[in-house]
Amino acid sequence: MRPKVNLANKYAAFNDHWSPKIVGEFNGQHVKLAKVSGEFVWHDHKDEDELFLVQKGVLHIEFRSEEVIDLAAGEFHIVPKGVEHRPFTDEGEEAWILLIEPNTIKHTGEVEVDLTQHEAQWI
Amino acid sequence: MRPKVNLANKYAAFNDHWSPKIVGEFNGQHVKLAKVSGEFVWHDHKDEDELFLVQKGVLHIEFRSEEVIDLAAGEFHIVPKGVEHRPFTDEGEEAWILLIEPNTIKHTGEVEVDLTQHEAQWI
Repeated sequence: MRPKVNLANKYAAFNDHWSPKIVGEFNGQHVKLAKVSGEFVWHDHKDEDELFLVQKGVLHIEFRSEEVIDLAAGEFHIVPKGVEHRPFTDEGEEAWILLIEPNTIKHTGEVEVDLTQHEAQWI
Repeated sequence: MRPKVNLANKYAAFNDHWSPKIVGEFNGQHVKLAKVSGEFVWHDHKDEDELFLVQKGVLHIEFRSEEVIDLAAGEFHIVPKGVEHRPFTDEGEEAWILLIEPNTIKHTGEVEVDLTQHEAQWI
């Protein structure tokens, strides 16, 4: 059994953006923490739902319908599999997020960009 | 796609103890919120890992090894499948917790007690 996880301690351990770190695993899902700022790319995950829970700041998630969901600290949203989405923050702002998604997921779906991370790191 | 979830608004919607409410579903997992106070029963879940994330107060989880894990707000712990555990709070205290576990899980495992909830409610 792994020890308990203190989120604040884990967030203190990294500063890079759009690079989720794994902090837990259960039932084939990874719990990941990320610091994000600016714009991510449009992508989807064919077979995986993705949970976004904001811990600090504000995260926006845009959909192809032009709907934008605004998540403040203490709010979560589940992006269903197959739904294209683009996460972003207000310019110059940072958000700290907790993600839960299958341990098989690809960071940017089938899209390959400079931001794409091929293997998430445990911290 | 379901709307976003504001945790504070959902916690404001109920006051009963040890009765998790479902607030989200992804990849066969339910996100549940519970208010807890006092002692729960010893139980395990044969095939399901269970994530406990504390939002308010302190939750203790005791194991048969006599180890006790103390979770404050912003801390989570994953109880692996098959591991007997007993959640409790300090006497007279309340904790608000977020649970994530498969949508097939039984509340008190194979143990049947007065506290056992047979069907969790969506709020």
